[in-house]
Amino acid sequence: METLYWKDNKLYLLDQTLIPMEVQYVECLTYKDVIDAIQTMKVRGAPAIGVAAAYAMALAENEGIDLDVAAREIKSSRPTAVNLFWAVDQVLKSVDDGNSAIETANLMAINDIRTNEKIGAYGNTVIDDGDTILTHCNAGSLACAGYGTALGVIRSAVANGKDVDVVCDETRPLLQGARLSVFEMQQENIPVRLIVDSAAGHMMQKGEIDKVVIGADRVAQGGVANKIGSLMVALAAKRYDVPFYVAAPMSTFDVDNNIFDVTIEERQKEEVLKFNGKNIASDETVVENPAFDIVESDLITGIITEEGIKKPL
Amino acid sequence: METLYWKDNKLYLLDQTLIPMEVQYVECLTYKDVIDAIQTMKVRGAPAIGVAAAYAMALAENEGIDLDVAAREIKSSRPTAVNLFWAVDQVLKSVDDGNSAIETANLMAINDIRTNEKIGAYGNTVIDDGDTILTHCNAGSLACAGYGTALGVIRSAVANGKDVDVVCDETRPLLQGARLSVFEMQQENIPVRLIVDSAAGHMMQKGEIDKVVIGADRVAQGGVANKIGSLMVALAAKRYDVPFYVAAPMSTFDVDNNIFDVTIEERQKEEVLKFNGKNIASDETVVENPAFDIVESDLITGIITEEGIKKPL
Repeated sequence: METLYWKDNKLYLLDQTLIPMEVQYVECLTYKDVIDAIQTMKVRGAPAIGVAAAYAMALAENEGIDLDVAAREIKSSRPTAVNLFWAVDQVLKSVDDGNSAIETANLMAINDIRTNEKIGAYGNTVIDDGDTILTHCNAGSLACAGYGTALGVIRSAVANGKDVDVVCDETRPLLQGARLSVFEMQQENIPVRLIVDSAAGHMMQKGEIDKVVIGADRVAQGGVANKIGSLMVALAAKRYDVPFYVAAPMSTFDVDNNIFDVTIEERQKEEVLKFNGKNIASDETVVENPAFDIVESDLITGIITEEGIKKPL
Repeated sequence: METLYWKDNKLYLLDQTLIPMEVQYVECLTYKDVIDAIQTMKVRGAPAIGVAAAYAMALAENEGIDLDVAAREIKSSRPTAVNLFWAVDQVLKSVDDGNSAIETANLMAINDIRTNEKIGAYGNTVIDDGDTILTHCNAGSLACAGYGTALGVIRSAVANGKDVDVVCDETRPLLQGARLSVFEMQQENIPVRLIVDSAAGHMMQKGEIDKVVIGADRVAQGGVANKIGSLMVALAAKRYDVPFYVAAPMSTFDVDNNIFDVTIEERQKEEVLKFNGKNIASDETVVENPAFDIVESDLITGIITEEGIKKPL
């Protein structure tokens, strides 16, 4: 199942709000269609957003839109993941160098998968046979052009003959852990268990988790921004001496900025309040719905990249 | 809205699985009806379970059932909260002393509210004007015969003229925070905000939480058992120097045992997998669904009881 593909000058995005209940692709005819899909999280995951944004630039090129104008709009679709900004800038630079946007986007999609395979290979070196690995949200093939970052590490360990066992946090409010990560592991017959987010500490206290591996939306000075809840997992890992790894491509690194200066996206309250159209509290309820949080550097054992395992910034 | 009441030799329990969407009472004609209501969590919260169990003994008395037999069955309905065992033993002892079970149960219901008012009064002394207080699950009037333990502390602070602001974790899987605690605060016009469980750490990291107050299912040597997720909240509170209080009656204390010897109830996987009848992952998914976790004593600032604020055991 492909996260995205380009065909007949259109971009097709797997609608990740429907997985695993329905498999349906969104057809994007214009760059604004892609912006809408990013904002509504039909496509999500930092690397996948980056590649989708590159294809949005290709659509804008075909539409005859000024690429600088399109770039600004695409970049404003979501604020926290840095790959979005990086990918759009890569396309602008490549076009300046005389390439087409579509050639650049295609190359980025291929490179994303190659990068993830390298992350997987480095990640495999820290996974032991018999490990139970906890992950939060979905940093899998669905979060990327393919293979995945955190789940790529698990795939690589399995490909290297290691028995691993995966525990997925469900990841409220949008349940990417339950819906996407559990599904990806089940598709490949990798043993997987589902827990509510708040049970991760309990499992670590009982000694049932050997490693934590998560993805990242941005790596900067002082820490890593990732899906809301990553911080609490990291605090539990620290308490119970569970190695805590972040798996992310170098395009996620924002070396010049402090992570606490990054805008944490606040999303609409309906994501929390409504579940399959029914309310869990009254419509008038005030909700805080931050989409990300910050894992401070001292909580991170290492960052697994395509260039090796790095210390946090 | 009463959590429970006795009328015409029947026990009426507010069905807490339906709140706030529907207000409906379950009519219990037999002690087995009460056991069923406890197991399906139509009545929940350690003190409320205790009082309901006492009334179950009164029903058994009216049914002409041997009270020792009924006691054993009632005690086996849920394993973690100690108030259940305490309440049933209190009734047996009181009946031995020549009282009726129903008199004893009525007295326990009244005493529960008085106890909670005392907890509230002691708790008020640690709350400052302007505090933002985070709570997990529901240790409110709905978890007790009335008034509440953790939410009783908040009620008492408000009654003493303090401006407080409440943040409720939604409390997956059964959403007692979103459905019950938010509702209780809204009913009394106390400012309240709802967050997903995994956002508590983020709010503490940003300095937005002044105190944490939660309830308890059991206080024993080494820590406190409470709703799953309490541990991760406590770890975040420790990291960001937020005082972490447990509010619980002395009947929750199990002073002779170690908290790590307590059985942590594992509940059915459908609670996590299904939401309003729809799945969040396939039916075949393996789920771990522990109902409680353990907050270790070093993470607890104080335990607010009807006899004053105590150090954890």
